[in-house]
Amino acid sequence: MQKIAGGITAARGFEAAGMHIGLKKVKPDLALFASEVPATAAGMFTTNLVQAAPIKVTKEHLAHKGKIRAVVVNSANANACTGEQGMADAEAMTAQVAQKLGCSAEEVLVGSTGVIGVNLPMEKLERGIEAIVPKLNPQGGGSAAEAILTTDTFTKEYAMEFQLGGKTVRMGGMTKGSGMIHPNMATMLAFITTDAAIDRSLLERALGEATAQSFNMISVDRDTSTNDMVLVLANGLAENPEIKEEDADYQVFCQALFEVTRQLAKLIARDGEGATKLVEIQTRGAANLDTARTVARSIASSNLVKTAVFGEDANWGRILCAAGYSGASFDVEKVEIFLGDLKVAEQGRGIDFSEERAKAILGQEEVKISVDLNSGSFQATAWTCDLTFDYVKINASYRS
Amino acid sequence: MQKIAGGITAARGFEAAGMHIGLKKVKPDLALFASEVPATAAGMFTTNLVQAAPIKVTKEHLAHKGKIRAVVVNSANANACTGEQGMADAEAMTAQVAQKLGCSAEEVLVGSTGVIGVNLPMEKLERGIEAIVPKLNPQGGGSAAEAILTTDTFTKEYAMEFQLGGKTVRMGGMTKGSGMIHPNMATMLAFITTDAAIDRSLLERALGEATAQSFNMISVDRDTSTNDMVLVLANGLAENPEIKEEDADYQVFCQALFEVTRQLAKLIARDGEGATKLVEIQTRGAANLDTARTVARSIASSNLVKTAVFGEDANWGRILCAAGYSGASFDVEKVEIFLGDLKVAEQGRGIDFSEERAKAILGQEEVKISVDLNSGSFQATAWTCDLTFDYVKINASYRS
Repeated sequence: MQKIAGGITAARGFEAAGMHIGLKKVKPDLALFASEVPATAAGMFTTNLVQAAPIKVTKEHLAHKGKIRAVVVNSANANACTGEQGMADAEAMTAQVAQKLGCSAEEVLVGSTGVIGVNLPMEKLERGIEAIVPKLNPQGGGSAAEAILTTDTFTKEYAMEFQLGGKTVRMGGMTKGSGMIHPNMATMLAFITTDAAIDRSLLERALGEATAQSFNMISVDRDTSTNDMVLVLANGLAENPEIKEEDADYQVFCQALFEVTRQLAKLIARDGEGATKLVEIQTRGAANLDTARTVARSIASSNLVKTAVFGEDANWGRILCAAGYSGASFDVEKVEIFLGDLKVAEQGRGIDFSEERAKAILGQEEVKISVDLNSGSFQATAWTCDLTFDYVKINASYRS
Repeated sequence: MQKIAGGITAARGFEAAGMHIGLKKVKPDLALFASEVPATAAGMFTTNLVQAAPIKVTKEHLAHKGKIRAVVVNSANANACTGEQGMADAEAMTAQVAQKLGCSAEEVLVGSTGVIGVNLPMEKLERGIEAIVPKLNPQGGGSAAEAILTTDTFTKEYAMEFQLGGKTVRMGGMTKGSGMIHPNMATMLAFITTDAAIDRSLLERALGEATAQSFNMISVDRDTSTNDMVLVLANGLAENPEIKEEDADYQVFCQALFEVTRQLAKLIARDGEGATKLVEIQTRGAANLDTARTVARSIASSNLVKTAVFGEDANWGRILCAAGYSGASFDVEKVEIFLGDLKVAEQGRGIDFSEERAKAILGQEEVKISVDLNSGSFQATAWTCDLTFDYVKINASYRS
């Protein structure tokens, strides 16, 4: 299993394009990717009560259980809270792509990210879709990855190659989402393609498991935007024997999907709005998986932990406090806390440690915080970033 | 029912003092208040799994069901995550106050706020308690209010006078807590005194109800610090007939207690770390009380709503989004949103409104956001503040 260059066009038979159609002032704002042959697809969606039109339309299209040919995504406008017009617009986007590609609208999915509550300028979208379809090409992944960004500061792609049933399989993805300091409101979009052949229900299960350990570990339960979406398309062109049961091949596929989603999730955390550091929170020694995850996410979501990391202040009390209010149950008197490999607390209270060394650890671009609950064998990892002046700056005038 | 000057010494028979004993560099850091006669007392405490030593000791003392004579509070050190030594220190503080006042240690309660994980410098505390007891005086409320502050920028007191059973009753309180932008980690301390005569179990019930509508509406469930504490002492010196059942007098008492706690809670929100604005979130038209409160608190806790208020950006989509991920159930298509009295969204989507007027409303020092769910008759109010550059500045180096 090895990393290769590229993103959503790394796997065989996938083409993509990205271009500027005038939703943003200058930067690319429309992305399209398609599979030469119909692909098996699965999706995970926001649990927010308020669901954007593209979420509803994509769910409906997946509900037909047919194969998928293409996904169209715009940035700068979320098409959320836009009423019936919003639904009609999202449908129109899929219909137009379908007509150009010669398939049915149900074979096309749609995603949007950006400002909430403003109807899409459909003339621009129509002209844009007309123009983007001829641009689809097997090297277009990077261009598409650029077009889905909002406040992100870099494109986020990852791809791998691995063996399945004697065949070389590729899998790659792209993602966006940068308001991850408080993950709840950042629209997180992620798209993964693979040339593996896999049964749809197993693809869905694999995506659910991978998401729980990756994208959901940079996000707090219920705290999801109106537009969050993770899609995976598998077109079978690697010609591996189709994965139809939970056998060894399925395990390999799951491992690859977890690795791709984990890398993409880390890229989101690293590019958190205003972030200067990637922060990895590991919990171990938990009595069960739920406790491990709940504690890790609670620490990763604490504004005060994140400002302390920004300030390079070894304020471990905030870490323990965030574990304590997570809602998970554990024995406080057994807790050990580490910054990097430097122990700063044990038995639930502080110990003498070198403040200088702690400051040096917190001053690195990647900071690891680990919490050992010493009550079992379960572990979990969450990712976040520091909370900085620039987070406030970016979000105080997002619409302007 | 009318506002009067003062705080915890507004009611008859209460004395207080505050002084500097060297926990902070310059500012007052030790507060003490006492009732001439033993007082009925009730308390509400943090639900954090990690509980500071003063929380444990105060709970134990209240569990004796006896009356209470005094409360001693230090700032600058939370005495949390400090092990057995921390427990012994908190006990020693109550014992020393008791010895000086000539009562038992169980009649004294203790609170602390400040840095977590550092043992108290007990020599300073001992000398401090020795020195502060003679300073107790009936005008000492303001001085005590000053000594409990941490990053607060002003003292927080409120007092009222009202009639009970033909007698004039007074009630006053003080509070601290300024890290309320994300309320979870801010230690919120609140102390209320009254000369009303009231049965203990009714006092407990009244405090629970008042707290649910006041302090808990600037705080999210489970997201409480290791040291949060609300105490009320009622010494009966007003000589009203003791309130022993849920009669009209009890209702008046509850109303007064709600008013005092509400005013104190608003002061905390107004003084949120780095805040420039007090933000009031009202939900109405909810199908039940829980929905009204959950939605109000979710909006009040959203970093993105609060940065938008700071930036005076009428980004109502963030308000609706925060309502949507609150976990409460409601019909999105019926939601109306108002900034002040300016409607900015209806039927769950945006309408045309004057951006200029919205900006003017968001530019005021007190901003009201209301959300009408149009699904029932329940309402709730939550308070928060804007999220600013200074929040990050304050919290990036709290320990330094």
